[in-house]
Amino acid sequence: MSLPEIPKVLSNKAKIMELNNLDQLIELAVKKGKRRVAVAASDDDSVLKALKQAVERGIIEPVLVGDKKKTTAICHQISFDISSFNLIDEKDPDLACIKAVKAIKEGKADILMKGMVSSASFLKAILNKEFGLKKSETLSHFAIFQTSHYHKLLGITDAAMNIAPGISEKVSIIQNSVEVLHSLGHENPKLAVLGPVEMVNEKISSTCDAAILTQMNRRNQITGCIVDGPLAIDNAVSKQAAEHKGITSEVAGDADILLTHDLNSGNILYKTLIFLSDGRSAAIITGAAVPVVLTSRADSEQSKLYSIALAAAM
Amino acid sequence: MSLPEIPKVLSNKAKIMELNNLDQLIELAVKKGKRRVAVAASDDDSVLKALKQAVERGIIEPVLVGDKKKTTAICHQISFDISSFNLIDEKDPDLACIKAVKAIKEGKADILMKGMVSSASFLKAILNKEFGLKKSETLSHFAIFQTSHYHKLLGITDAAMNIAPGISEKVSIIQNSVEVLHSLGHENPKLAVLGPVEMVNEKISSTCDAAILTQMNRRNQITGCIVDGPLAIDNAVSKQAAEHKGITSEVAGDADILLTHDLNSGNILYKTLIFLSDGRSAAIITGAAVPVVLTSRADSEQSKLYSIALAAAM
Repeated sequence: MSLPEIPKVLSNKAKIMELNNLDQLIELAVKKGKRRVAVAASDDDSVLKALKQAVERGIIEPVLVGDKKKTTAICHQISFDISSFNLIDEKDPDLACIKAVKAIKEGKADILMKGMVSSASFLKAILNKEFGLKKSETLSHFAIFQTSHYHKLLGITDAAMNIAPGISEKVSIIQNSVEVLHSLGHENPKLAVLGPVEMVNEKISSTCDAAILTQMNRRNQITGCIVDGPLAIDNAVSKQAAEHKGITSEVAGDADILLTHDLNSGNILYKTLIFLSDGRSAAIITGAAVPVVLTSRADSEQSKLYSIALAAAM
Repeated sequence: MSLPEIPKVLSNKAKIMELNNLDQLIELAVKKGKRRVAVAASDDDSVLKALKQAVERGIIEPVLVGDKKKTTAICHQISFDISSFNLIDEKDPDLACIKAVKAIKEGKADILMKGMVSSASFLKAILNKEFGLKKSETLSHFAIFQTSHYHKLLGITDAAMNIAPGISEKVSIIQNSVEVLHSLGHENPKLAVLGPVEMVNEKISSTCDAAILTQMNRRNQITGCIVDGPLAIDNAVSKQAAEHKGITSEVAGDADILLTHDLNSGNILYKTLIFLSDGRSAAIITGAAVPVVLTSRADSEQSKLYSIALAAAM
């Protein structure tokens, strides 16, 4: 009697669910095959350097929209051969954004990336009601971290987009982040809604929001994940800390995603992991029709590559 | 010709300003001589263990107020000889708080510490208008961190007391924290008011508060420190990041204290440093007539010792 064959899907999933370092994003992206990245205002040396690395890894093919002369000069300087790629000449950064979005709409690209243009102009093109790419009610920032202080990759949302989201925005932010993990093969991620304490306290609105979101998850108003909160950072990432406080929670100590209350706390969490810990991260904007890569010049080259890989692995 | 002698005060100050690890707090406390710690509800094994260590380091002498039988039993168990210390028998935890506060008022103790009693009861005794210890307008939490990711000790306030402080409370919280560093010999600490971005944005109240507090410092409404904000974590702790963004600030990259906008962000910063980085900390409640040590059972034994040392070094 032969042993039953393990279904391929299951074995893939089991493997993917073990994501504990960012290089696995590159591996996943390689498996999924080359994605086409429309780059808005491509004359940006740091972006072109990251694209070059991603091309060398075999995970993407750029569709460059920007100042042709400048883009070509930078590529020459960094020895990035773009002769086989589509390069649309557009000197005006705002128009470059619109043309890059159009390339996505027309099925000519799968991922959108920001180049030498302000975030405001770039987002405006995405959010345009007529020709934009908005899909979810709310665009949100999703980062995924690797740190030696946690046993797997840790998602964080929202560190960069929403200033003070209400309940409905938080629902969208959760769904956006959960969709990312689904697309990476994680079927039922655990999401901790962060608060400064684990008790619901009507004077601390983050704890009330957390309770509401948890119950919405139990009522299937938020699906595809296990939501629990309020949990403070200690209880969200340390089983021992949670047990010490007598917290019974499937999420405690094993969270895949941390939802922060607002931009103040999200930004602090994100930047503390990078600047006061050993965190390395990939980040994208979620909630649009396609993954959006919006790196900052201050991001490391590695982080930019990981961000492209995250978008390509989805 | 002999070289001019370096004035003692200056050399002391120079030395103290270099605080970069928490063991220096113990050294400082040793230099300042034994402080008397009034412990409210002393029948608490984790507190007694920390006190034992502090006594062994020669930095404190406890005045124990609590259930005599239980306290003695625990001390016997952990081989802590308390025969030479004052032990006031008081089984009721609330009354023990009041008696410990009274010991401070009568000059019989220099530091107040919480034992086996709720934080609420303990703080109630401190805040009592008639016989309490309140000095500043606002009590606040001050933690000081050692991490391999920063070049010196880093103060953080407020991670545990004030939910959503307004400007006047923030002024008190700043003054409370600055007084701690003054008492450790740091004459003019640099305080970064944190925001998620470094630009003032009227839609993000933390950035407006930061601008207001910075200007209040320039008008000498907040003294004894250099205040600058808004600064995000990256700019507050990394000169390189600040330069990258073209930020000119005496505080950027060299902050001694980080002021968070609210409890959500303060608590995340504090707990991320402990649970998702290599941070070790000492923490006290400031704004009372004496330093107040309020450790949580979840704190490590080492952290409790450092907290006592911080109070004793002030």
